[in-house]
Amino acid sequence: MHESRLSAVIIDCNVDDLAAAGRFWAGVLGREALKPAADSSYVDLAERPGELTVVVQKVAHAGRVHLDLETDDVEAEVARLERLGARRVAYVKDWWVLEAPTGQRFCVVPARKPMSGANRWD
Amino acid sequence: MHESRLSAVIIDCNVDDLAAAGRFWAGVLGREALKPAADSSYVDLAERPGELTVVVQKVAHAGRVHLDLETDDVEAEVARLERLGARRVAYVKDWWVLEAPTGQRFCVVPARKPMSGANRWD
Repeated sequence: MHESRLSAVIIDCNVDDLAAAGRFWAGVLGREALKPAADSSYVDLAERPGELTVVVQKVAHAGRVHLDLETDDVEAEVARLERLGARRVAYVKDWWVLEAPTGQRFCVVPARKPMSGANRWD
Repeated sequence: MHESRLSAVIIDCNVDDLAAAGRFWAGVLGREALKPAADSSYVDLAERPGELTVVVQKVAHAGRVHLDLETDDVEAEVARLERLGARRVAYVKDWWVLEAPTGQRFCVVPARKPMSGANRWD
């Protein structure tokens, strides 16, 4: 048995100025852009309890929006998603990038903290 | 004064078989794909209280994921977003498609039901 859930929306931005991208999306969503580490490619947007995590990421590919799923068992979750029709694209650090049969890429990441409201899969 | 909030993630799918696309994403997220009207381009995924709305949409353009903001005043919200750097792309039925300075398109739609946890803008 393992668990997974939708954990985040990642706004991928092909930009030079990550801080400006973070400020824009923070303004759109009415959230505070948290200050990233100096070498980070991510700006976290502060969330209120129950809100979905939204992260602004600096990327080298075309800008887009992608979904992250988190799980307590990445390999079992990726295998489950493959059975649904997804395919593996790349393993990065400790997560998998998958491609949906409908074309979108999304990521399966290890849960960083206890998950509430996750789906349980046998 | 007007209000807005992140209301939905829309999974745009350039596919012939919308029902299959809906089943895939329902399976990914552990939600039920609700049966659409016969002529609909949308499959709603059932959500539990507090979960973000996720909708699978059949589109003619390339597949992607986009965000919807809902508001009680579309014109005021679009004007606010323009001041942040967004630009208007198209008015469709009763909503605006905007493009972020970071390249992603997103929509500003009229709120269909009372909004909880919305941002208030003066």
